[in-house]
Amino acid sequence: MNGAESLIQTLVNGGVDACFMNPGTSEIHFVAALDSTPGMRGVPCLFEGVASGAADGYARMRGKPASTLLHLGPGLSNALANLHNACRAQVPLINIVGDHASFHRHFETPLASDIESLARPYSAWLRRAGSAATVGRDCAEAIAAVRQPRGGVATLILPADAAWSEGGHVGPVPAVPVLPMPGRKKIQDAAALLKLGQKAAIVLGPQTTTEEALIAAGRIAAKTGARLLAPFAFTRLQRGAGRPMVERIAYVTDQAIQQLSAYAAVILAGAPPPVSFFGHPDRPSVLTSESTEVFALAEREQDCAGALMALAELVGAAQTPPQVQAREGCSNPTGDITAGALAAAVAASLPDNTIVVDESITSGRGMMAATAGAAPHDWLVNTGGSIGIGMPLSVGAAVACPDRPVLCLEADGSGMYTLQALWTAARENLNITVVVFANRAYAILKGELANAGLNAGPKALDMLDIGRPDIDWVMLAQAMGVPATRAANLESFAAALRSGLTSGGPNLIELPL
Amino acid sequence: MNGAESLIQTLVNGGVDACFMNPGTSEIHFVAALDSTPGMRGVPCLFEGVASGAADGYARMRGKPASTLLHLGPGLSNALANLHNACRAQVPLINIVGDHASFHRHFETPLASDIESLARPYSAWLRRAGSAATVGRDCAEAIAAVRQPRGGVATLILPADAAWSEGGHVGPVPAVPVLPMPGRKKIQDAAALLKLGQKAAIVLGPQTTTEEALIAAGRIAAKTGARLLAPFAFTRLQRGAGRPMVERIAYVTDQAIQQLSAYAAVILAGAPPPVSFFGHPDRPSVLTSESTEVFALAEREQDCAGALMALAELVGAAQTPPQVQAREGCSNPTGDITAGALAAAVAASLPDNTIVVDESITSGRGMMAATAGAAPHDWLVNTGGSIGIGMPLSVGAAVACPDRPVLCLEADGSGMYTLQALWTAARENLNITVVVFANRAYAILKGELANAGLNAGPKALDMLDIGRPDIDWVMLAQAMGVPATRAANLESFAAALRSGLTSGGPNLIELPL
Repeated sequence: MNGAESLIQTLVNGGVDACFMNPGTSEIHFVAALDSTPGMRGVPCLFEGVASGAADGYARMRGKPASTLLHLGPGLSNALANLHNACRAQVPLINIVGDHASFHRHFETPLASDIESLARPYSAWLRRAGSAATVGRDCAEAIAAVRQPRGGVATLILPADAAWSEGGHVGPVPAVPVLPMPGRKKIQDAAALLKLGQKAAIVLGPQTTTEEALIAAGRIAAKTGARLLAPFAFTRLQRGAGRPMVERIAYVTDQAIQQLSAYAAVILAGAPPPVSFFGHPDRPSVLTSESTEVFALAEREQDCAGALMALAELVGAAQTPPQVQAREGCSNPTGDITAGALAAAVAASLPDNTIVVDESITSGRGMMAATAGAAPHDWLVNTGGSIGIGMPLSVGAAVACPDRPVLCLEADGSGMYTLQALWTAARENLNITVVVFANRAYAILKGELANAGLNAGPKALDMLDIGRPDIDWVMLAQAMGVPATRAANLESFAAALRSGLTSGGPNLIELPL
Repeated sequence: MNGAESLIQTLVNGGVDACFMNPGTSEIHFVAALDSTPGMRGVPCLFEGVASGAADGYARMRGKPASTLLHLGPGLSNALANLHNACRAQVPLINIVGDHASFHRHFETPLASDIESLARPYSAWLRRAGSAATVGRDCAEAIAAVRQPRGGVATLILPADAAWSEGGHVGPVPAVPVLPMPGRKKIQDAAALLKLGQKAAIVLGPQTTTEEALIAAGRIAAKTGARLLAPFAFTRLQRGAGRPMVERIAYVTDQAIQQLSAYAAVILAGAPPPVSFFGHPDRPSVLTSESTEVFALAEREQDCAGALMALAELVGAAQTPPQVQAREGCSNPTGDITAGALAAAVAASLPDNTIVVDESITSGRGMMAATAGAAPHDWLVNTGGSIGIGMPLSVGAAVACPDRPVLCLEADGSGMYTLQALWTAARENLNITVVVFANRAYAILKGELANAGLNAGPKALDMLDIGRPDIDWVMLAQAMGVPATRAANLESFAAALRSGLTSGGPNLIELPL
């Protein structure tokens, strides 16, 4: 058994059974080992940003890490932007980054690169494998490092000779660590806050927007009248009919300030204190006013789900039925294409258990409100503000959940960042429907220009318009093997959406706006 | 004058008049200042890897820096792979990386990022602008840092409030620094080596493959019989009929060892000692044998061109006509599509002064030999082994030299990395003809599998084949506004090439292999 084989076997034993990859020469023994070491699904990606975004999507849906295989410093560099998003999402993820053979590394070669320095900003765990004999153990430690609800990115640098040399040993499967609960006093203080009878909100962090934690939060809300909020950049929210109602904090600073001004107390369940996305000249960064008490029930390193369940107990809500969203009948809208009509069309078309990946930026701001009472579904968004995650995230979610349809709501500017994801969707025949909102602009930036009171001249507008020439998304998709259509009106959009979401395979709908 | 305006004016005064960009909210004041501060050409890119690769191409052709405008850590991350290549190319380049306003930076926001750590591995100069009052001076220092023949990447972090605040001052235009000559003894020792009458080669670094330095090298070669070599990963080589003959060191390790074994002495003119691209289990990293003397005439930080001219003087070649390549008649080949026939077709079609950007990897290995005696032209290649530079480099070269045709020889796997460059070519109506060699595979990796004696199973081959579905490059190009055609045979390829190279605008030819 060589080092590469011991590495793959350790990953598989540790439950890491998908690897999103774009390998090069230094990783060729890892690639060859895919056949001799069963249990690992290799998913080819034509660009590393697709691989890292897909690994994020996989982890969000499965709650366990996928791996990436990347080619030295440059391959890792291409993955970094979506690793930035993955870090914010607090998902587990394991990067395997190939490097030159140890005896070759110190020469001045074209690909010589400082992988450690590039990896460090986005790696909670980072190690260079020393040899074939130790790489299995190294990998087991990487799995242990990220195998906890707060996630984390681990990066294991794999020198080519550690992969190709014989003498590999499979590493021991690590136990899933137990997260510490916050101190009892925290739970008691939060309970006391909720019992004051003042308006309160609970901001739910990444551990608490799914499953039992969300139910516990819903019980607390039903019992105490507290509202449930999610940060604008949440990781994965289970929502729709029958699920506890969670309101998203607004992106636009003034709206968010207004939204939060309603509360005397804001309790954080593993979420950071609400701050605005960007700083603005005349606006505060902190979204809550001084009269609002912001109380941290649990930190992200703690058992946030456990904290909510303990809090439910303390407020006497352990058996309280959670306040849940009623099913809202949705009918297909007719008439002009407007943001509201598009959102209604999406709401009417969502099959049960759809995974919605939302990178629709300005075009889709009404989508969440319109789908609140639709069939139960999961909603994933961009957690780190680095655009180009939508289609990669969809690839990962579809690999993770082959029995569920994925609906990717994609802005055209963001979509162009990582459009290579469409090819992987075709190669793997993934159940993904991509809707591209083609407004031919970085519309959010045009809004910022206006907000800043700037007179945009023609040169500035040239940088923000992405038309001239208009990008033909139907051709882009078809060129990569994904069936595609253009929706000229609401009726054809709704029809294409229904057809796409039930097709079982990849498809794309361009919606010119 | 706000900080952004003072920054742009300083850049323009320092000769930096092109900015390849993908801005975001934090850079919106820089964008707005493009109209109020004349002299800067903004070039929109749909992905930051296009911007950094284009800035590299611009610098290679103009010998002066272009700038990029990038959006916080993630925007910089996307640019890093082509910055890796730019560092190896030793070109000057200035990144402007927007960041949160200083008062907003320390909050936990989605886009908060450690820009310094991400920038450091590929920045010879790195600074965070403190305020609007100082950003002009900071920028002047960045220009000074990269304004020398050995180039370098400078990264200036621009907090949003340093851009939007009033009180900007234009920085002083720095003088072009004078590089030190190597010591006299170095020149004398090199001359003595060349006078021994043994077989010698001079390996030309980035400063010495163009203009006077190349002529000086040609004079030395004519006088002493030394051969001129370029590293496999050279920056820019002026070649073709009437130019000194320079042979490229082979990529394949065994071939390179064989090639260099002919020489008793190898003199380095600002080039690193020849080493293999990757390390292999049973092959040496160093390509020269122990019996070959490797002598460094000049380091990259020194005046390598001056060193060659001084050496020409010492060997009595100051007036010797350089040995130059004869014009070779090229006629359009007929018959089957083979590597040789394609290379001959390219050689026959090259207009005078074409800029050839070669990222054809395995498909184009015969191209340089076939074009040695073609019309004079420039040849640019991938310097750092990070694929996805060909089309971005072409964009930058075309912006730099609007009066010259650019021929981009692109492998399909590499091209997919940064295909967004095609849109910029269309938007800016750049004179670029892209030939995509569509072999539907990472063929170089299949070769490595075979070289390593590995039995490639079906899962491994799935990671290396990029067909199924085949990518339709004609549609991809047309979808981004670039006219395109598919060449089914040699005759149609030659015709499309002639037509494309004289069209004056962007076009693409897919060549299925």
